[in-house]
Amino acid sequence: MNKFMQMAIEEAKQGITSGHGGPFGSVIVKDGKVVAKGHNRVVQNNDPTCHGEVDAIRNACQVLGTFDLSGCEIYTTGEPCPMCLCACMWANISKIYYGCTIGDNAEIGFRDDSFYQKVADRSQLGQYLAQLDHEHCQELFAFYKSMTNKTNY
Amino acid sequence: MNKFMQMAIEEAKQGITSGHGGPFGSVIVKDGKVVAKGHNRVVQNNDPTCHGEVDAIRNACQVLGTFDLSGCEIYTTGEPCPMCLCACMWANISKIYYGCTIGDNAEIGFRDDSFYQKVADRSQLGQYLAQLDHEHCQELFAFYKSMTNKTNY
Repeated sequence: MNKFMQMAIEEAKQGITSGHGGPFGSVIVKDGKVVAKGHNRVVQNNDPTCHGEVDAIRNACQVLGTFDLSGCEIYTTGEPCPMCLCACMWANISKIYYGCTIGDNAEIGFRDDSFYQKVADRSQLGQYLAQLDHEHCQELFAFYKSMTNKTNY
Repeated sequence: MNKFMQMAIEEAKQGITSGHGGPFGSVIVKDGKVVAKGHNRVVQNNDPTCHGEVDAIRNACQVLGTFDLSGCEIYTTGEPCPMCLCACMWANISKIYYGCTIGDNAEIGFRDDSFYQKVADRSQLGQYLAQLDHEHCQELFAFYKSMTNKTNY
């Protein structure tokens, strides 16, 4: 068994036995060393975005003092939902190792599969999104584009 | 101009002029009243997950004392990336109003479009994800499933 996945499982177990949320633990590794761990704290923190991967990413960023986790890999007990997959990409994580699948998530009551379908096929979102005040927002974007000395990410 | 979108733009402007991150502000509304606001703080907080929508969701959940924002709507200056779209769905937000499009995001240097493509067509992810230790993680999930008195989300 992979030692980092074992840590991710232990992290998840600690979370569920403490009532923090679902069975999702994550470990972020750089150059063969653990940078940070995290687990699902949706219930504990009243934060629907605090999945295991997101918690670990936030912790790793605090440890390294950056929003850029280039060169880091993540080990996570469940295949990431679209939110967490995209969080890994925004963080520039180089590789994701996961244990259980999106199908396994469904088996224990989570909605990841339907979210993947909706993100992939926007028509399934129906009227969930609507556009408003495009021109006013474009002015905001143009102002941002014109700014100098900004930090890109 | 919609008054909540105007607030979202003001929130975004405050963020960019303070160097917090990109031009993304969000306002969460319930029963016609503002519950919370948020803006992109990726640079400020060294948190690649702290997009405007995520910041607003976290704030609204703290205000309401729940991880469930059923009945809430979000007004946001840019069309949500897959992370934020999925964050809204996990939070049970009922409707998303956005100003600029994913194409506009690309114009000012953001990668949302490529992330949408990769989430929709997993083959584009190549070797980004790899599965490990499935059975050990399934044991964890089975243990969670067997637990009583857990809070579903």
